[in-house]
Amino acid sequence: MRYVRFRDPAGATRRGTLESGHVHFANESYSLDSDEIDVLPPCEPSKIVCIGRNYADHADEMGSDVPDRPLLFLKPPNALAGHGDTVTVPAGKERIDHEAELAVVIGEQCRHVPEADAMDVVEGFTCMNDISNRDDQRQEQNWIRGKAFDGAAPLGPVLATPDEVPADASVQTRVNGELRQDGHREQLIFPIPELIAEITTYMTLEPGDVIATGTPDGVGALNDGDEVEIEVEGVGVLEHTVRVP
Amino acid sequence: MRYVRFRDPAGATRRGTLESGHVHFANESYSLDSDEIDVLPPCEPSKIVCIGRNYADHADEMGSDVPDRPLLFLKPPNALAGHGDTVTVPAGKERIDHEAELAVVIGEQCRHVPEADAMDVVEGFTCMNDISNRDDQRQEQNWIRGKAFDGAAPLGPVLATPDEVPADASVQTRVNGELRQDGHREQLIFPIPELIAEITTYMTLEPGDVIATGTPDGVGALNDGDEVEIEVEGVGVLEHTVRVP
Repeated sequence: MRYVRFRDPAGATRRGTLESGHVHFANESYSLDSDEIDVLPPCEPSKIVCIGRNYADHADEMGSDVPDRPLLFLKPPNALAGHGDTVTVPAGKERIDHEAELAVVIGEQCRHVPEADAMDVVEGFTCMNDISNRDDQRQEQNWIRGKAFDGAAPLGPVLATPDEVPADASVQTRVNGELRQDGHREQLIFPIPELIAEITTYMTLEPGDVIATGTPDGVGALNDGDEVEIEVEGVGVLEHTVRVP
Repeated sequence: MRYVRFRDPAGATRRGTLESGHVHFANESYSLDSDEIDVLPPCEPSKIVCIGRNYADHADEMGSDVPDRPLLFLKPPNALAGHGDTVTVPAGKERIDHEAELAVVIGEQCRHVPEADAMDVVEGFTCMNDISNRDDQRQEQNWIRGKAFDGAAPLGPVLATPDEVPADASVQTRVNGELRQDGHREQLIFPIPELIAEITTYMTLEPGDVIATGTPDGVGALNDGDEVEIEVEGVGVLEHTVRVP
């Protein structure tokens, strides 16, 4: 199943099922691209736990080693943006990058989850752009100005249940129609169950919390007016525009 | 004014005023120490933005330089704990430390706040213990295992309006009755208006969000069964117990 959260023409927040490009809720149906509805991020995370350098080729392009355990960082709720939104990035920076990611949406409150049971707490998968302000990221101990700014986490629009997403699903970025990143889920250094086990050793995950599993190689600069598409195979395509103030 | 959030005997969440050790709401009054009520953290932050090395003597004791702009990191909502709670710290660590902090509670949604207007967005001040797992903090790029674990942010119990808190308010930790930290608000390298201006350059703060302003020198180890008191002059005393599993 594929789900889309949206505000309907009456302003009510709904979660409908997506079939053939249409969102269905109760007796109503809307085109996903319709102006009648506002497509929202597919969940309301209390936190987004992100993984750095989880693809070897990306660690290499950043001049970094592969970590010996998952490199964790956080994006708070202010970082969220939705499908079709215009993301205004921090002003006056030399380099703001796209990072396409397969994002995991948690379905139940959980802690100390063994790897073997980890997929039981997953509601589904979605698309995320881990937008990164390299100017500040390179200078900070913790990547806050670099990664936690408003709009740094466009998310959605589709939440797909795990059965919809192949084990080797592709994770892609296109900018103005040009393919920039093209990785595969099976390249993850730390696979999803290992991430869930490690994170929940330290913290409780809540329903709607998100784990962003890292980006493949091919990260690159975003410029004013760029139209970004993040596609995860089996999930769908997240689109947003970039504004450099 | 001083406020305390609590669950009343009927289970309803209330915010009462604190006077002479009693919490008042509508026609009811309870002793702050009464078993009839559950004292809650004074707000419900979507994020806690923390400041590292914001007292020169603490940067020195950690063998670190004073940063040239605020060192930011995040604690998510799972880190919250309340007055009177028992905090279970991560298992198997050599060194878990207390860090007494003056915490700022934000009163309104805001972004791009100039320093001159920053106190207008402050609802009040409270006490926080920035509990720190040094084993992991020393090894991590971002302080997630080190600082964002469940219970890593005991907060409260009192929210005091800014007029209640002196410009040179003391910030203290006592462990089992022994004074361990004793700093003063005026020692902050980056004062509160500068912190608010810098943080809101990058991100929106929401009502109830917290800025933890950093810890003075004297940080030290916590052990199983320790009784911790964090006191900010003009605010009150936050008490919690430590459990090492």
